Amino acid sequence: MQPYELSVAAAADAIRARELSPVELVDSVLDRLEQVEPHLQAYVTVMAEDARRAAREAERDVTAGRLRGPLHGIPMGLKDLIDVAGAATTASSRVRADHRAEADSTIAARLAAAGAVLLGKTHTHEFAYGLTTPQTRNAWDRDRVAGGSSGGSAVAVAAGAATFALGTDTGGSIRVPSALNGVVGLKPTYGLVPRHGVTSLSWSLDHVGPITRTVEDAALVLSALAGHDPRDPASLTTSGPSYRPGGAVELTGLRIGVPRNYYFDHVDPEVEAAVRRATAELESLGAQLVEVEIPMTRYIQATQWGLMVPEATAYHERTLRAVPELYQADVRILLEAGALMPAGDYLRAQRSRTLMQQAWARLLEDVDVIAAPTVPATAVRADDAAITWSDGTVEGVSDAYVRLCAPANITGIPSLSVPVGHDAAGLPIGMQLLGRPLGEPVLLQVGHAYEQTRPARRPAAV
Amino acid sequence: MQPYELSVAAAADAIRARELSPVELVDSVLDRLEQVEPHLQAYVTVMAEDARRAAREAERDVTAGRLRGPLHGIPMGLKDLIDVAGAATTASSRVRADHRAEADSTIAARLAAAGAVLLGKTHTHEFAYGLTTPQTRNAWDRDRVAGGSSGGSAVAVAAGAATFALGTDTGGSIRVPSALNGVVGLKPTYGLVPRHGVTSLSWSLDHVGPITRTVEDAALVLSALAGHDPRDPASLTTSGPSYRPGGAVELTGLRIGVPRNYYFDHVDPEVEAAVRRATAELESLGAQLVEVEIPMTRYIQATQWGLMVPEATAYHERTLRAVPELYQADVRILLEAGALMPAGDYLRAQRSRTLMQQAWARLLEDVDVIAAPTVPATAVRADDAAITWSDGTVEGVSDAYVRLCAPANITGIPSLSVPVGHDAAGLPIGMQLLGRPLGEPVLLQVGHAYEQTRPARRPAAV
Repeated sequence: MQPYELSVAAAADAIRARELSPVELVDSVLDRLEQVEPHLQAYVTVMAEDARRAAREAERDVTAGRLRGPLHGIPMGLKDLIDVAGAATTASSRVRADHRAEADSTIAARLAAAGAVLLGKTHTHEFAYGLTTPQTRNAWDRDRVAGGSSGGSAVAVAAGAATFALGTDTGGSIRVPSALNGVVGLKPTYGLVPRHGVTSLSWSLDHVGPITRTVEDAALVLSALAGHDPRDPASLTTSGPSYRPGGAVELTGLRIGVPRNYYFDHVDPEVEAAVRRATAELESLGAQLVEVEIPMTRYIQATQWGLMVPEATAYHERTLRAVPELYQADVRILLEAGALMPAGDYLRAQRSRTLMQQAWARLLEDVDVIAAPTVPATAVRADDAAITWSDGTVEGVSDAYVRLCAPANITGIPSLSVPVGHDAAGLPIGMQLLGRPLGEPVLLQVGHAYEQTRPARRPAAV
Repeated sequence: MQPYELSVAAAADAIRARELSPVELVDSVLDRLEQVEPHLQAYVTVMAEDARRAAREAERDVTAGRLRGPLHGIPMGLKDLIDVAGAATTASSRVRADHRAEADSTIAARLAAAGAVLLGKTHTHEFAYGLTTPQTRNAWDRDRVAGGSSGGSAVAVAAGAATFALGTDTGGSIRVPSALNGVVGLKPTYGLVPRHGVTSLSWSLDHVGPITRTVEDAALVLSALAGHDPRDPASLTTSGPSYRPGGAVELTGLRIGVPRNYYFDHVDPEVEAAVRRATAELESLGAQLVEVEIPMTRYIQATQWGLMVPEATAYHERTLRAVPELYQADVRILLEAGALMPAGDYLRAQRSRTLMQQAWARLLEDVDVIAAPTVPATAVRADDAAITWSDGTVEGVSDAYVRLCAPANITGIPSLSVPVGHDAAGLPIGMQLLGRPLGEPVLLQVGHAYEQTRPARRPAAV
């Protein structure tokens, strides 16, 4: 096994045991990155020399006995919405062509302090305003979409071109590309990971979280990210526990909700079958499956868009007026439409969110976790604009990909996407585990337990 | 002294000691009401027979030894935004002409359970959308405004036509009429008193609270009102302590902030002098006066209106479309204007509120309480549309009356208005004490201590 194939946890163990040096690890991942990047285009910018320098420094620290923890010397990619001092934050947009971040975002600073080594900035849909990443290709099939908007991060991790990466998630943008590329993606509880220094799409829906190849890795990265930052007005003051899941794979006594509505409507049969097999696996580990009714489903789409559209427009107000021609047409049209939206529609979306939060809180009194598909279909071909369901219904690709993810953004509850197999074409399928606010330890425990029943995942063969 | 002149606390003591019966008290207040109401028009509806029946029942309970607490047998008025089962909630509007409330509001039910006796429903500016109460006259001068929108409640209490009353406060509507009529008004912390069954003006700014003749009375009424109700989405789960202030009048160690900006700008010299005398009195009781800088003052007005206008319009959306002709012109124009407001302006107001909440929280780390005028001028003549300040600036009456009250609505912090004397024309002056979220016990203690230094207040001689 090459170092680039190692999980964060395995690499950290090897570095701690001095069986692997940060320089070897970073060199291996950079070599892999150079090999696959021409086919995948996961990165906006690769900072190979900076990464090699940081790896040498990490190695000196190891030699001197200054080990900073499990991310020490681990190479990572950051979605290019995340500020790193001195580097551009392009948001994959021409609007940011001359940008230089003056300071690290809170999370970039926390990862640097934890010893992680930045390989480069990964591609997003322009300003994260979409469920695909047009520049980037799926790690399992280059003719397929990467999913988005954190497609660069998910593809890099899936292909071994980063040991872990960070994404952002406003309507599924961590979980959608994670599911479509067969990696683990965690959208944490709203406010758990601070967003200071992260370009905003829609501040009441935006989350930052890890993309990794194992659930345990997601827990390790989350432990470095979580914690209060007064510079993010939504940042929770609750401090996180340790997120690393314990060794036990017993789920006895845990109640797992399986939706009887919404989450299995207009879902590809292969996706549904894989998710149901995975929930059966959780049952065999001792969990009790409970049918649950998802509340207020007819309000989900209107609430998601009603919140997102005006908040996105408010953020871009000045640049949209100054340099509209620098935006891609799809994003510009959405931003311009947002300026026409009346306050009353936004108000209704906010009221609907409050009611949905209360209804989901009641639902999550009955069960510890809800298990459901992350996205209703695997990765579509890059030129497909819509999905036709078996009843003849036609749904836009973005609408389909956001549909099952949006409730966790609206309500702020955590959601963990884990790979649960592949369809007949070899494309990955994701299951999301939704939990109570600050219920990340439970989600990670369940995801980890499930993962132990499966063969270890290795990077996609690009 | 007639029973109608008694405070809640004094009447409760007399009822407990069986020196006064609820029937005597209610009869005395109803007689007073009949005498003054033709001159003041504080009430939309007087329910004399219901009140007398409730008084007889309260008396039977006393005789049987079933005393329900300090509100047992105490006659009160409810602002006519507050639902009482079987009665109209007119909101002083023709829109509600045929209305009948099916159930008690949470607070009406709590007051009934505490034994209070409802005298009637008091006048408001139509749907509380204004800082005056056009139907009602000031208790101290019939040619002057009552202030609003809880003008009926404040005038009734000031004149002895209710022993206490409830008002609602979205931009000062409890505190403004309390100050202008020489009574005590408390706008509690946002979410402390549930609003289920109370007609909404602007749900993110709306508060319900007591209007009384003493600070102790405000504490007694608050104790009956406060506490969680899941039917108000904003209701706090924090349960209140006992609010009744202790006997000690020592304020040693307490830090009282005196604003160096904003709260004394464009303030009538007699109002300023009275408030400064009152703060000097607090200093002589042992408090330390500390100059403070009020943050973000240039955003206060835009934030208040930016939140209120679209929320009010959203609430009235259907009736405004169905029966626009039933609204008064001033209110209809405001509601119609709200429909034209873009989502971006509301968003900016919400962001500004978040920043103001944080800035005020920092300010209130340094001091326990802030003392300031409630309104910058005493009651204007009913036909005055504007106030001209000494520097020649002209300010609309509503703008002037809302100006110093709005920060507590925007931030949600509690504010207690207490009478601090009269101007040369004999019109009352109010001082507001602003505190930390859930800091009501401190405000009530300070207000009570101040009150002990003054001659007892009796109803206005109408």
